[in-house]
Amino acid sequence: MDAAEFRKRGKEMVDYVADYLEKIEKRQVFPDVEPGYLRPLIADSAPQDPESFEDVFKDIEKIIMPGVTHWHSPYFFAYFPAASSFPALLADMLCGGIGCVGFSWAASPACTELETVMLDWLGKMVNLPEEFLAGKHGQGGGVIQGSASEATLIALLAARTKTIRWVQSENPELTEAEIMGRLVAYASDQAHSSVERAALIGAVKIKSVPSDDTFSVCGSALKKVLDEDKAAGLIPFFFCATLGTTPCCSFDKLLELGNIWMHIDAAYAGSAFICPEFRHLLNGVEFADSFNFNPHKWLLVNFDCSAMWVKKRSDLIGAFKLEPLYLQHHHQESGLVTDYRHWQIPLGRRFRSLKLWFVLRLYGVRGLQEHIRKHVRLSHQFEHLVLQDERFEVCAEVVLGLVCFRLKGSNELNEALLKSINDAKKIHLVPCHLREKFVLRFAICSRTVESTHIKFAWQHISQLATDLLKTWEQNHHQQ
Amino acid sequence: MDAAEFRKRGKEMVDYVADYLEKIEKRQVFPDVEPGYLRPLIADSAPQDPESFEDVFKDIEKIIMPGVTHWHSPYFFAYFPAASSFPALLADMLCGGIGCVGFSWAASPACTELETVMLDWLGKMVNLPEEFLAGKHGQGGGVIQGSASEATLIALLAARTKTIRWVQSENPELTEAEIMGRLVAYASDQAHSSVERAALIGAVKIKSVPSDDTFSVCGSALKKVLDEDKAAGLIPFFFCATLGTTPCCSFDKLLELGNIWMHIDAAYAGSAFICPEFRHLLNGVEFADSFNFNPHKWLLVNFDCSAMWVKKRSDLIGAFKLEPLYLQHHHQESGLVTDYRHWQIPLGRRFRSLKLWFVLRLYGVRGLQEHIRKHVRLSHQFEHLVLQDERFEVCAEVVLGLVCFRLKGSNELNEALLKSINDAKKIHLVPCHLREKFVLRFAICSRTVESTHIKFAWQHISQLATDLLKTWEQNHHQQ
Repeated sequence: MDAAEFRKRGKEMVDYVADYLEKIEKRQVFPDVEPGYLRPLIADSAPQDPESFEDVFKDIEKIIMPGVTHWHSPYFFAYFPAASSFPALLADMLCGGIGCVGFSWAASPACTELETVMLDWLGKMVNLPEEFLAGKHGQGGGVIQGSASEATLIALLAARTKTIRWVQSENPELTEAEIMGRLVAYASDQAHSSVERAALIGAVKIKSVPSDDTFSVCGSALKKVLDEDKAAGLIPFFFCATLGTTPCCSFDKLLELGNIWMHIDAAYAGSAFICPEFRHLLNGVEFADSFNFNPHKWLLVNFDCSAMWVKKRSDLIGAFKLEPLYLQHHHQESGLVTDYRHWQIPLGRRFRSLKLWFVLRLYGVRGLQEHIRKHVRLSHQFEHLVLQDERFEVCAEVVLGLVCFRLKGSNELNEALLKSINDAKKIHLVPCHLREKFVLRFAICSRTVESTHIKFAWQHISQLATDLLKTWEQNHHQQ
Repeated sequence: MDAAEFRKRGKEMVDYVADYLEKIEKRQVFPDVEPGYLRPLIADSAPQDPESFEDVFKDIEKIIMPGVTHWHSPYFFAYFPAASSFPALLADMLCGGIGCVGFSWAASPACTELETVMLDWLGKMVNLPEEFLAGKHGQGGGVIQGSASEATLIALLAARTKTIRWVQSENPELTEAEIMGRLVAYASDQAHSSVERAALIGAVKIKSVPSDDTFSVCGSALKKVLDEDKAAGLIPFFFCATLGTTPCCSFDKLLELGNIWMHIDAAYAGSAFICPEFRHLLNGVEFADSFNFNPHKWLLVNFDCSAMWVKKRSDLIGAFKLEPLYLQHHHQESGLVTDYRHWQIPLGRRFRSLKLWFVLRLYGVRGLQEHIRKHVRLSHQFEHLVLQDERFEVCAEVVLGLVCFRLKGSNELNEALLKSINDAKKIHLVPCHLREKFVLRFAICSRTVESTHIKFAWQHISQLATDLLKTWEQNHHQQ
């Protein structure tokens, strides 16, 4: 395919994507396929000779679309949102066209420098303390990671290295292995599984801190565990605080922890902090060493774009820096350049800051605030509908765009309700556990979801509950 | 921006990308900017109100392009290639439009299933042993990672977990920490820095195995180190063999290592194995536990797309599996589905297999073989030009698309030559060290590079060498 054909096909693809997103509401949100559906539909092996674009293009509707879960349907209320917007799609096209790999400043200066400045823009939007910004000569700064999981892992590894060095300087008789064996990381019992996974990868112990009645870790609960562990000769080194937990969007308390690295995982909720009325949820960030949230969740920047800031960039770089000659360049010791490969797990990196640049400029801060506020409004609309129905209960405070709810009754009943909702495939939800309770999560996701969709979703759920309760009571009587 | 405006702007962007790539030869391959160039060119913070698309679009040429290193210029001979092709760009547009996050089968079945089948296609193209393929009910299979670094890390972590479990089952008295302290990973002294980094992250010792005169690790050198370490009570658990090292594209010998996990990092060279005449370089892959190469380097699939296969998927999954309720789904215990989140570091993942699908079908195997063969032909053309000039030497066997060469003379002289090449900015190269020698790497990179560009590059280098040698000798006389 040459440039001339790309012009033609590219424009067809633009129209296809525009059509897909404009009419996504008409597609069934969750697919009908069974595991293994795709293999019989396509060839056993790659063709020897080129096929025509028409043939490939036709297969999108024939083979791919029947197996797609439509994350941008206004009837998609599962997980957390995956952001998508037209400005971000345009920026991604440009990113692909430039196709540079920005592992060092020299590998494409624009790629590195735009990222640094965009993370400053974004940091200012959520009113981060100055120390987290790169500014002109700051010690801190931001970086785009692929996912919050990677940000947590990077923070944990940096904390591990820093603590080992510090403990060794105070106790030169201890080996690295002995120190490692005493390190302990902490996170809420409501924290995302990626925190436990980061500890697994980093080969350190991790302990769950019990959350309170609001599913938040409070200072006293954390202090209690830390004191016990210190008394037992362990070395607490890392606390991952969650702002906006995955099960129910609860908020841990942020604390000053001295020698313990505090990382804030605000993967979902962080985007909301651009609204002054939600910024108080980030109070205490001044005590943190690193902070992360995902514009690719709720700030209209397509996946992947996970924004991470640190107060001391030397903490990240010090944990990993390796400098083979083929990656060295003239400017790197000038102190003026950032080589982002030292800030992340992979070596290669795409020009992802273009997406931030396009979205921030083409929406403006106000446009993005409107997007957040609309979602929060819609979640409260759903909450009110649930509360008006005596058969249901809301299971956690609705702060942002997530409503946790359930039928008053057994877990089995609620599992049956979720099954009937997801089997009907008019809307799509996923569940969670809050303590011993099986709970349904209703997350406001799509950019284009409106009040009418919320009303429809609730009427649908309510009707399915009525149907379910009828058979459930019959069965119950029969038994 | 609504769908109607996206149709208009998207088509403008398609033309911009087509223009950029069609005329890339006219742009200076390496930018003139100094560190910090970008910040003064843009606002201090994000705009409150939306800007116009025209303003953003204008800034691409004004602010971004002056700082771009043009990886797809036919005058770019640095690092290794970053793949780019029009079919891959089209697929990425579709990937962005669908915008699903495929961490589990249920999160978008097509995303998972196409990936599994595409990795089977690709595995067959390089003639991998059947055990590495997923087939219909295989124990192995492939996955797309973001980078070879992540593949190496994942393999090392899986090997670590597997070895700890095995050692503990034989020696129940040993703690995990005690076993960890005795684990040793190995890689060639020519291996990529990401291998050392993986060991750092995984908190295990790593040792360099000395390579031979051809910069390859041979069986006897590895066995010697392993025997010594076993005798000293250590537990060798992981060997990362490199096929196509970064400094000079040398090839380690592949061996049967019993209980030691052998991972093959063929990040660059792997794409060449689709040509029967290069497939012998992969002989011995049957002894490996995992294998990785980057279609995003040399198989015309835009970054990121790093293909990794394992013989036993349970080794990867067993190392990481964590199952919070909100990620569980109805089909997951059926044994028929793959939840790729257990195969990788991040949780989220894009629909990257679309790129493979488009590229493999629109080029066909033969089209891709032609691409590889053209690059290899061009590297031999450059090699011949170097060899005809008595002032120069070729420093390692030219097997694929990389030529390592230098002026016969001191490292300082060659450093000066590289500086004069990169300062002139007509072409772009990076160096490496081979043993004590400073060497220039000439990598065939661009999809559109032709014989004329090679001739131009050589004449340019040769002229710069003549100029340099003149002043060098004068300075030498004066001293």
